[in-house]
Amino acid sequence: MRTVFLNGEFLTDEKAAISPFDRGFLFSDSVYEVVSVLGGRLVDFDRHLARLSRSLEALYIADKIRGSEWLSIFRELISKNKLDEGLIYLQASRGNPGDRSFYWPDPKLPPTVFAFTQELPLTDNPAAEKGISIVTLPDLRWGRADIKTTQLLYASMMKMEAKAKGADDAWLERDGMVTEGTSQNAHIVTNSGVLVTHPLDRTILHGVTRAAMVDLLEQHDIALEERPFSVSEAEDAAEAFVSSASTFILPVQKINGKPVGGGRPGPVATMLRQAYIDWALEKAI
Amino acid sequence: MRTVFLNGEFLTDEKAAISPFDRGFLFSDSVYEVVSVLGGRLVDFDRHLARLSRSLEALYIADKIRGSEWLSIFRELISKNKLDEGLIYLQASRGNPGDRSFYWPDPKLPPTVFAFTQELPLTDNPAAEKGISIVTLPDLRWGRADIKTTQLLYASMMKMEAKAKGADDAWLERDGMVTEGTSQNAHIVTNSGVLVTHPLDRTILHGVTRAAMVDLLEQHDIALEERPFSVSEAEDAAEAFVSSASTFILPVQKINGKPVGGGRPGPVATMLRQAYIDWALEKAI
Repeated sequence: MRTVFLNGEFLTDEKAAISPFDRGFLFSDSVYEVVSVLGGRLVDFDRHLARLSRSLEALYIADKIRGSEWLSIFRELISKNKLDEGLIYLQASRGNPGDRSFYWPDPKLPPTVFAFTQELPLTDNPAAEKGISIVTLPDLRWGRADIKTTQLLYASMMKMEAKAKGADDAWLERDGMVTEGTSQNAHIVTNSGVLVTHPLDRTILHGVTRAAMVDLLEQHDIALEERPFSVSEAEDAAEAFVSSASTFILPVQKINGKPVGGGRPGPVATMLRQAYIDWALEKAI
Repeated sequence: MRTVFLNGEFLTDEKAAISPFDRGFLFSDSVYEVVSVLGGRLVDFDRHLARLSRSLEALYIADKIRGSEWLSIFRELISKNKLDEGLIYLQASRGNPGDRSFYWPDPKLPPTVFAFTQELPLTDNPAAEKGISIVTLPDLRWGRADIKTTQLLYASMMKMEAKAKGADDAWLERDGMVTEGTSQNAHIVTNSGVLVTHPLDRTILHGVTRAAMVDLLEQHDIALEERPFSVSEAEDAAEAFVSSASTFILPVQKINGKPVGGGRPGPVATMLRQAYIDWALEKAI
């Protein structure tokens, strides 16, 4: 049994209930964040909260809960669930107006806020030793992937499709260029050692882990190029890897059945993963 | 107070509750239909149910409720709510697995099914006399608009944007070509009297009212061309109108501030609206 947070209350997950008239259910009018927890402490909390604010602002959903309040809610969830390593998920919808209309309700309507914990081994992830296998699939998502909404049906479909094709996950591509993974940013290292990653525009999520990774690149003197890369460039790269709050930095060993860089985690991905974990453990609050 | 249907039970709208772990809330993993009611009877019920089945099938959501069961649920809702004219909304999500994972749960998990009524004047709609004003806005929706999912955030945003621009609603365009309205199919009549409407592909919803309208065109000897039309072609058309379950056929009087066909409902739209209402009243079950 898990204690979750819903609209100001802590209660068991089985008792948590929202109205089916909630706009999160009827219209996907809802945004979310996933924050990782290491040793019972929150990783990159401020950056997650800043992105939450941006998502809410982009949709004109009232940002009713202050960062400091989220911090105490998260800490309470960690404590009540004795969470050592894993994730905290939080979602805010435009609320429950009690009926269905495409038009937004009175902005005074309180948003629905929901948060819960998931235990998950993050640092000790067997996939990190071997690397994951990726297939590329078309990116048919909406044009505002930079807003972290719960319109995740396509990402979910493509994870299932990747699984059906015998792969661990999928990278999405538009016109032959990789945008990002189903739930991670996608990166490659060229044969001349440059880290290439999609620029921050409206077609990808502005990853919090990606941002921390970019900081680490400077410290470790790795050249960065922010530009789209093609599927074939990725297949022929020296290294490939993903970043997200739940995977940190995770090497890719195969793209569309072709081994990347010898089919095992490369030095840049391996170094970045360790550097990220070190940084996260040091800075977690 | 309204009686709604939720997972096998009839209960008041205020008591209806779902888990926030429902995949409809977390992942927009959910489809819906809106059926119009005239004189307490259901309009084009079979075609709505057939589309529901197609939507569920496209997402591999188990289609647990038979058409005949939906029919009795709908009739019960009409009776309990004394609904004479208005809408019945139904939604089916992939259900509540009790936790969050992008991967689909065991297909034996029962879907969440929810249905409710809304009173609304449909035949006697003041907008039909005057026509509605439309602005065109970019179509940034996902690439499977043919599946009637609850990923409606963009449609909702564009209705708000249209309102902010002083218009009644928006038509969406990709590369200068109109796909459809935010919640209606879009049609024009050329100066030579041909009805032009977007073909049934993955970029538009396959409208139930559109299908009934196409049948009526044959009976009334109106030529039909199924092809995309441009924004400027629409602005210069003899007539423009929309179709949907909640608006039937509704004339457009203005596109991007420019009056269409003299700025008042044209003969084809006016005739089709009446023919549709006559047909619906006759065939409703």
